[in-house]
Amino acid sequence: MTNPVLIGGQWVASRGTQTFFACNPSSQQQIDREFPVSPWEDIDRALDAAADASRELRGISGARIAEFLEAYAGQIEQRSEPLVAAAHEETGLPVSPRLRDVELPRTTDQLRQAAAAALSESWRDATIDTAAGIRSMRGPVGPVVVFGPNNFPFAFSGIAGGDFAAAIAAGNPVIAKGHSCHPETTRLFAEAALAAIEAADMPKALVQLIYRTSHEDGFRLVSDPRIGACGYTGARQTGLKLKQAADAAGKPIYLELSSINPVFILDGVLRDGVDAMAEEFTGSCLMGAGQFCTNPGMVVVSDSPAGHQFVSAVARRFEGTAPGTMLSDGVCRSFGSSIDLLQKAGARLVCGGTPGGGQGVCFANTLLTVTGQQFLNDPETFQTEAFGNGSLIVLAESPEQMCAIAEQLEGNLTGCVYSCPEGSDDAVYDRLEPILRTKVGRLLNDKMPTGVAVSPAMNHGGPYPSTGHPGFTAVGIPASITRFTALYCYDNVRSHRLPAILQDPGLGPDVWRRIDGVWTTGDVGAPAQTP
Amino acid sequence: MTNPVLIGGQWVASRGTQTFFACNPSSQQQIDREFPVSPWEDIDRALDAAADASRELRGISGARIAEFLEAYAGQIEQRSEPLVAAAHEETGLPVSPRLRDVELPRTTDQLRQAAAAALSESWRDATIDTAAGIRSMRGPVGPVVVFGPNNFPFAFSGIAGGDFAAAIAAGNPVIAKGHSCHPETTRLFAEAALAAIEAADMPKALVQLIYRTSHEDGFRLVSDPRIGACGYTGARQTGLKLKQAADAAGKPIYLELSSINPVFILDGVLRDGVDAMAEEFTGSCLMGAGQFCTNPGMVVVSDSPAGHQFVSAVARRFEGTAPGTMLSDGVCRSFGSSIDLLQKAGARLVCGGTPGGGQGVCFANTLLTVTGQQFLNDPETFQTEAFGNGSLIVLAESPEQMCAIAEQLEGNLTGCVYSCPEGSDDAVYDRLEPILRTKVGRLLNDKMPTGVAVSPAMNHGGPYPSTGHPGFTAVGIPASITRFTALYCYDNVRSHRLPAILQDPGLGPDVWRRIDGVWTTGDVGAPAQTP
Repeated sequence: MTNPVLIGGQWVASRGTQTFFACNPSSQQQIDREFPVSPWEDIDRALDAAADASRELRGISGARIAEFLEAYAGQIEQRSEPLVAAAHEETGLPVSPRLRDVELPRTTDQLRQAAAAALSESWRDATIDTAAGIRSMRGPVGPVVVFGPNNFPFAFSGIAGGDFAAAIAAGNPVIAKGHSCHPETTRLFAEAALAAIEAADMPKALVQLIYRTSHEDGFRLVSDPRIGACGYTGARQTGLKLKQAADAAGKPIYLELSSINPVFILDGVLRDGVDAMAEEFTGSCLMGAGQFCTNPGMVVVSDSPAGHQFVSAVARRFEGTAPGTMLSDGVCRSFGSSIDLLQKAGARLVCGGTPGGGQGVCFANTLLTVTGQQFLNDPETFQTEAFGNGSLIVLAESPEQMCAIAEQLEGNLTGCVYSCPEGSDDAVYDRLEPILRTKVGRLLNDKMPTGVAVSPAMNHGGPYPSTGHPGFTAVGIPASITRFTALYCYDNVRSHRLPAILQDPGLGPDVWRRIDGVWTTGDVGAPAQTP
Repeated sequence: MTNPVLIGGQWVASRGTQTFFACNPSSQQQIDREFPVSPWEDIDRALDAAADASRELRGISGARIAEFLEAYAGQIEQRSEPLVAAAHEETGLPVSPRLRDVELPRTTDQLRQAAAAALSESWRDATIDTAAGIRSMRGPVGPVVVFGPNNFPFAFSGIAGGDFAAAIAAGNPVIAKGHSCHPETTRLFAEAALAAIEAADMPKALVQLIYRTSHEDGFRLVSDPRIGACGYTGARQTGLKLKQAADAAGKPIYLELSSINPVFILDGVLRDGVDAMAEEFTGSCLMGAGQFCTNPGMVVVSDSPAGHQFVSAVARRFEGTAPGTMLSDGVCRSFGSSIDLLQKAGARLVCGGTPGGGQGVCFANTLLTVTGQQFLNDPETFQTEAFGNGSLIVLAESPEQMCAIAEQLEGNLTGCVYSCPEGSDDAVYDRLEPILRTKVGRLLNDKMPTGVAVSPAMNHGGPYPSTGHPGFTAVGIPASITRFTALYCYDNVRSHRLPAILQDPGLGPDVWRRIDGVWTTGDVGAPAQTP
């Protein structure tokens, strides 16, 4: 019996005939649950339902949106055991420490942070110019299509993750495209969402779920006139094709694509302790079999005895650690191909390089090196993302060459610099930082990039091609919400017709507005406070 | 002698051989000043110079940027008479009231508002999360290419207008592409900019000026790896081609394209006085020969005796007013073609419809009508922009039909609703507003859309295809500045290495930061004030 799709608050049979099954990467067995490949008719119905919900949602209060998001977080917690079990079965990711005690709490926390933002309307950027009689705020952009990735079945899920939470917080219905590696996990979320929709008395079509479509229908979906915007996290090639389709239709699309997350380790750090640094790097690089958007895929150290000791110290750890189970055969094959490509371009294999060696789908922890000059001779190839448990170490001849390497970097989500706390690396840091700053969204000191805190100051974004636009972040509230908004300006609009947040009275101590250039929680016309 | 181009702080000869001349639209004579069509070599040099300047500008203080913008405003004021004379000669726009006493002061005011924003860093959205150790702000995106339009030789000029001011305020160098209808005006601005660069001791290549390129080189320019972003104001067709090129290269491009700016006049208003309404509309529609991005190109009234009286009252005024001089033969021909197209689709010509009748390049003030049903039968054609001194009045059978018409609207910069102050139109307003809200950037009550105040709450933007993205505005500071920024996040970065605005101490009473969710001008760690 093929699972139905969720459209307009109803579980309905797909109009399609094609189906698919997920695979358990730990056992390498097909999972006996059948899911539909949705034809355009399913998508078309989902679009109509979402467009209707978008109209129903016009003018809805932040309090009601918050109520839904809170109810959803609660429903997810009630279903945490089946969710964790399904995600483990479908992705091979460890139950603990990962799915149960890291990713699921992060997901519900994200939904609750979005609820708080809906309530405080912090995402609205309410701006009041009393002299000109003009007031503006952000408002919903319209139905949002969210494509979730394979590597975070909870926190980036199309139906429960960061893009979903952000789209809903701004008052938009969502059409979720689940990842076809973990359809059952996604289905369980949809049940929780449906229960929350009922509990919070929201429009039934607030959330749609489709499991899989053809590529062509995906392109058509992101360029459909009925949608407002799209969020996509996944592989670069597919993402760029979706971008092309959405761009041509004038639809905003926010992409989180590949990133190699360069880490520069300056000499003073290695002098202070090669082993501690190797330990920290290995932990970050092999966590979750390296299947993180912010996995450190490239390390730059000096081509010095200390640099070579670092390579050896990492290699020992890589060889002494069992490789993790990967998300799918496809991920494993693609990792292998990237490793091959890097070797063919001249990278030296230090360890790993072959599939197997652990439970289920896996690939040996793999370390490669190139010289700085090799990198500079072919920077494009040596920035090929190898998504998995491996990394490329670049051995730079000199600080000048490190800077030259940084100048050749593509846009990345993150960039790290480890430097001696006593200041011996400061001269190099000061030359490197201004270059690296323009190449990455998040610049770190003395810290691996793998953790992505859900902080208002987070940037999980970066220059192209790590994303499609350097001004937006996929993580961090309220900033991530602004992606799914339009700017609504009211000029000379009669005061009782304005949305509450633009009327004269303030909305309490948590609701900030910029009134005549001053941020305040007070009423229009109230005397300004000196903060 | 062909005028040189401005690259790297030097007036240098173009490497090209093609040249062009502007035309005086009032006398219809060619102006005897020769300007170069720049080949790729000129553009390539400008890109290199701008990329160098971008590196020099890294970490520059807001105070120094402000100093340049202030100096530039002063230099423009010193040169106001030659600027006004050149712009009048090249565009036919009236010296007064327009160029001297409206557009030039608006332009210098805009530069000074941008200077104030650079100083107060209000565009940075400085966000500090003390618990997570993460701090973020907006930073410069890199060299910005600005294409200015024909219709605002000062306020939207590529080298002095809103996009220019916004790009510079964020610390980006600019490559200005002047409009080829007014090259001498643009050249005079470049001289003023160069003097200000010297006075403020800025990088010489802060501003480049090129007058004209081939379309192909334009596409190459907006997709070049050396640029950060692009701003374009102009015709839809060219804008969308530039968008395609920039999108494919992952370069943000902000477009301000066509808009017909629908005006809904509800019955209560006409009942209160057809003539006053006709007078107000005529003033807005014919101002500057209708060559405004926010010109009211479509009016919806009821198909009632009052509606027909309104049509007649407008027609009398259109016929009794001499048509203004248009910007160029091209604009005039294009206006004529649009009027023809609307007539061929079935619109009734009430008055006008032919070229001539005033000084120089001009076209009779033109009024057309269609029924609501005609509009609904072919909404795409009847939303053809006729850029000039004309408008299309749609006669709607009923309030339901008015709403149906609103549902068919494309994205527009503005939408207006005139309604009876005593409330008799409120029921219709309440149905119409939620529809119109999602179709326009700026919603007005009882006011024509032509004026675009430089207000922090302004939205001179709107849904596609009026612009390329519904979340951004081309006018209004600081919002317009954020277009030319990237999000810079600092995670665990040592405190002395942070930009000043992200360090613990506050920067004074004008510099706002969001610290742990609270907007304040105080220090990190200072007790929160109750505003």
